[in-house]
Amino acid sequence: MTENWIHESLYATWCQSFKVEKMLVEKKSAYQDIKMFETAYHGRVLLLDGVVQVTEKDEFPYHEMITHVPLLTHGAAKRVLIIGAGDGGVLRHVLMHRTVEKAVMVEIDADVIELSKRFMPQVGGASWEDPRAEVIVGDGIAYVAKAQDASFDVIIVDSTDPIGVGEVLFTDEFYQECARILSPRGIIVNQCGVPFMQSEELEVTSRRRRQFFPHVSAYVVSMPTYVGGFMALGFASKDANLTLPATSEIAARAHAAGLKSDAFYWSPSVQNAAFALPPYIDRCLPQR
Amino acid sequence: MTENWIHESLYATWCQSFKVEKMLVEKKSAYQDIKMFETAYHGRVLLLDGVVQVTEKDEFPYHEMITHVPLLTHGAAKRVLIIGAGDGGVLRHVLMHRTVEKAVMVEIDADVIELSKRFMPQVGGASWEDPRAEVIVGDGIAYVAKAQDASFDVIIVDSTDPIGVGEVLFTDEFYQECARILSPRGIIVNQCGVPFMQSEELEVTSRRRRQFFPHVSAYVVSMPTYVGGFMALGFASKDANLTLPATSEIAARAHAAGLKSDAFYWSPSVQNAAFALPPYIDRCLPQR
Repeated sequence: MTENWIHESLYATWCQSFKVEKMLVEKKSAYQDIKMFETAYHGRVLLLDGVVQVTEKDEFPYHEMITHVPLLTHGAAKRVLIIGAGDGGVLRHVLMHRTVEKAVMVEIDADVIELSKRFMPQVGGASWEDPRAEVIVGDGIAYVAKAQDASFDVIIVDSTDPIGVGEVLFTDEFYQECARILSPRGIIVNQCGVPFMQSEELEVTSRRRRQFFPHVSAYVVSMPTYVGGFMALGFASKDANLTLPATSEIAARAHAAGLKSDAFYWSPSVQNAAFALPPYIDRCLPQR
Repeated sequence: MTENWIHESLYATWCQSFKVEKMLVEKKSAYQDIKMFETAYHGRVLLLDGVVQVTEKDEFPYHEMITHVPLLTHGAAKRVLIIGAGDGGVLRHVLMHRTVEKAVMVEIDADVIELSKRFMPQVGGASWEDPRAEVIVGDGIAYVAKAQDASFDVIIVDSTDPIGVGEVLFTDEFYQECARILSPRGIIVNQCGVPFMQSEELEVTSRRRRQFFPHVSAYVVSMPTYVGGFMALGFASKDANLTLPATSEIAARAHAAGLKSDAFYWSPSVQNAAFALPPYIDRCLPQR
């Protein structure tokens, strides 16, 4: 292969590679190595420390599922905290819910925000200017340590893998603070990697969440460029009696939230189906 | 990258690559280019015409879902026809059902069978010697053209993509013959590619099946090394009133079939969830 291909460096013996039409950004920020480039099929692609974070073409499954699922499972989420997610995709999807009154986003790397706004403007869309949005450049763990008790209904952690800058977002300390600042029926969702390749990520973090949340589970999303089969989204709630809403109830809540029926991956039945875990993923969860 | 990496050649601008520990087979058979090699994480890998067919490590999602789903949806399948599937994985999973009396497998390329038996013996396991198995080296379309009316309850088409040797298995003629040789409540399942990358594969073949089957749908499986998000498995039945069995009924049928609960991907709830199609896949199906 010639040198206009970029190879993801996530795994030692297997990788995905993109043919680069045009390199847009190669930069070392204060926190990580950032690459953005143009491709013919996937549109623009963002790599952090050599790992794919988002492509224009396939951002939809991950962003729809990491936002709509916790918000519609909660059913009355007014205040949402987003950790990471510097490309703005989670913020945009959270603010699609007109029932949300406030979305605070805490991203540590200002360069990721600025470069995403410049090179992938439609990922965040108009959400950057939404009066309900508060975008903070700062440390997620420092933010949750200072936030008031019970001040958020849903927390969405859209981090890198637990290496490098994202590592603190997978610790006991972080989950404990998240439990404290969530309201009584509060829900936290965080990306837990691809269990076929990284099973310890879901195993370890589920055990950690179990210490602070009476309900711990997970659901799955099939993301084209997070290669390796299903990605797991860790799900935990302070509500010990949480039951997943029926499909009809999810549809009613989506309607009440003003969600347009233009999702590409999410639907009320896909939301329910996502909690049916293949046994090889289910066994990563703590025994119930 | 050094030359001990092998790059899949399926797409022009995106690919997966494996680091090769040891090359086992590089051969041009009468029908296709065959490569088999050893890897550190995925075990042995089979490529046909440059496209990944099976790896030892992740054969399970595809094989479990392409067999257990149609057999347990039918509920009383005694005679099963398998087209392609030269590695033996579908045959092994079909014969896990003690309710199956006869499984006929028609694979065009004797080399694929022989090399799979030699280098991936556990994929087919003991099924090659099962007295219920009839393995025919021959042309799938010629076989179905000569088979008797209503002689099979389920047909499973585990083919390559519709290029090269597998192309005839995606034609009107093939589906018409399959409809003829299926019993009145008969079901056909065939691999329809990865809709995120190859949406026309599911679109075109669903329209074709619609001409001969009153029920046409699809379900999904997330296969680690069929990169690009969900793979679609096209599903069609001669039963116009087919309804998917409830999870409890699937579990009862699996028990009656003697299926051990050692699946890694399949479960009764995963089977049901697999029919909840993300909108971007659902819209590949003919309007109902």
